[in-house]
Amino acid sequence: MTPLDRGREAEFRALVDGKAKPLGALGKLETLAVRLALIAGRPDPRADRVRLYVFAADHGLNEAGVSAYPSAVTAAMVATLLAGKASANAFARAVGAELRIVDAGVDADLSHPDLIDAKVAPGTRNAAEQPALTRAEVDQALARGAELAAKATREGIELLAIGEMGIGNTASAALILHRLGPAPLADCIGAGAGHDAEGLARKHTVLARAAARAQPTEPLDVLAEFGGLEIAMMAGMILGAAEARVPILVDGFIAGAAALAAIRMSPEAAEVCVFAHRSAERGHTILLEALGADPLLDLDLRLGEGTGALLAVPLIRAACGLIGEVASLDDVLQGRI
Amino acid sequence: MTPLDRGREAEFRALVDGKAKPLGALGKLETLAVRLALIAGRPDPRADRVRLYVFAADHGLNEAGVSAYPSAVTAAMVATLLAGKASANAFARAVGAELRIVDAGVDADLSHPDLIDAKVAPGTRNAAEQPALTRAEVDQALARGAELAAKATREGIELLAIGEMGIGNTASAALILHRLGPAPLADCIGAGAGHDAEGLARKHTVLARAAARAQPTEPLDVLAEFGGLEIAMMAGMILGAAEARVPILVDGFIAGAAALAAIRMSPEAAEVCVFAHRSAERGHTILLEALGADPLLDLDLRLGEGTGALLAVPLIRAACGLIGEVASLDDVLQGRI
Repeated sequence: MTPLDRGREAEFRALVDGKAKPLGALGKLETLAVRLALIAGRPDPRADRVRLYVFAADHGLNEAGVSAYPSAVTAAMVATLLAGKASANAFARAVGAELRIVDAGVDADLSHPDLIDAKVAPGTRNAAEQPALTRAEVDQALARGAELAAKATREGIELLAIGEMGIGNTASAALILHRLGPAPLADCIGAGAGHDAEGLARKHTVLARAAARAQPTEPLDVLAEFGGLEIAMMAGMILGAAEARVPILVDGFIAGAAALAAIRMSPEAAEVCVFAHRSAERGHTILLEALGADPLLDLDLRLGEGTGALLAVPLIRAACGLIGEVASLDDVLQGRI
Repeated sequence: MTPLDRGREAEFRALVDGKAKPLGALGKLETLAVRLALIAGRPDPRADRVRLYVFAADHGLNEAGVSAYPSAVTAAMVATLLAGKASANAFARAVGAELRIVDAGVDADLSHPDLIDAKVAPGTRNAAEQPALTRAEVDQALARGAELAAKATREGIELLAIGEMGIGNTASAALILHRLGPAPLADCIGAGAGHDAEGLARKHTVLARAAARAQPTEPLDVLAEFGGLEIAMMAGMILGAAEARVPILVDGFIAGAAALAAIRMSPEAAEVCVFAHRSAERGHTILLEALGADPLLDLDLRLGEGTGALLAVPLIRAACGLIGEVASLDDVLQGRI
């Protein structure tokens, strides 16, 4: 992985500082513009072609009742995404982004011309009882995610985005954050798709059992112990994006757990990650802090599907426009417009 | 002005609640979707055609040194906007919005085929010494803003947005907030386009003189005493948007002062206002609180030109997509996709 050429940071900062606006008046967009220029290695980054990948997978942990929904909802929502009728479809149309649905490990036979079949296994094993995945399965998921990133870049995609659909996956994400944050397990557990007090208590009990069963510290081991396949594949896509030097919008808590794993494997991967929003899911703020990340949006979202990542796409395009298209203050004041 | 039909609020809320997602999982976008449906009076609001109006004007207060920039910068930035090279142009392209530049009261002879000439006067009088505007000038500015809103609606615009360019206009906005918030003057004054300690102290002194000279309480009187023409014209556009029942994105501090004046004149106008972002300019949080407004974005912006309003456009479109396009959870679970 080629690290960014930090030598150009001062140049790009000066370029933004010199634009026709008061110094610093575009706040977070200015920092973002400099980062995007650094990632692209040029003063006029673009994000015209954007593609969101939604990775879907099931979780053996769900047998133990970590979610208010049955695992069958994963496949039903994949069908909804493929039919263009989920929130992510509506948001992708709203912002002008392409959308791809990936079967990373759904526990159902899915077949659809638009579905990317990258299934490693039909869901994970129950992490409360045994490792969710083998190391070989983790490696396969990582490799497939990285391949998709490389392919997208070859196809001209200038900005990637990742999201997910997987009933039970806030449970896996909580365990990953617990081990890799690291952070106390209870602080990592939230209501996910929604829980009553009893359901939330059950989620705590099940995850405490999983956390007691294994205490991995290496990211690959953490992914193997706790899953899931969509998380490992998103981590692979982040590593692939870093390799290809293309920025990648990271959605909420579960995509964030994938970013945490990827960055713990390869710290340079942080350079291409743009954290789209602060999720309402409990552990997300801890996760962002563990990564020193300051997200762009805070809209109380906790849906997944990449919805938050999509809403941040126009901010990336605006930041590109700022550094690439706006006149300099000097030119304005000298009448050279 | 026809008030919204609140009788349909429960219907639209139920529609959003029934979408294929956990209850409340799209946070602020859900509230927004219900509001947009109420404004449109139908369950499938659209914001495909969006137009930002940037109102430009000069301020007599600037003679007293309330800004770090000379008034000539207003005309120079209007030229930059007309040339397509300002931040607002880049952001409008990034989000797919139309842009119109309005001469509300620039102290220069401007002539350009794309400029809307709505000039009421070549700038305001110095509000530290005398009323900035006559009541007739205020009325004229309000009427022209309202006419522009009506015309845009006739042309098929589904979402309006307002922003401004006017050296010295955070000073006018501070005085408006002081009187109409109401709020202590010192809390309403920020650095605007940027000030050193000496400049900021001068701004405080000048504005204290203006505030001591006149203590109007009626919004029309406040606009007359303190200006400016772009603020009055934006207030008029808000009133016109309310009349036409079209949502209007309000940019930052100065556009917010226009919204404050419009809403104090006609409280129903609040129903169509969507506050785009929380500006880094000091008084803006007080202004938002005075209006009970919870803005969508918080990106440390303090530029104006409608840049923050533009960045919120995709959120409006996404909220429209949520309520208008996403399948119901029932349909997903019954396999009716």
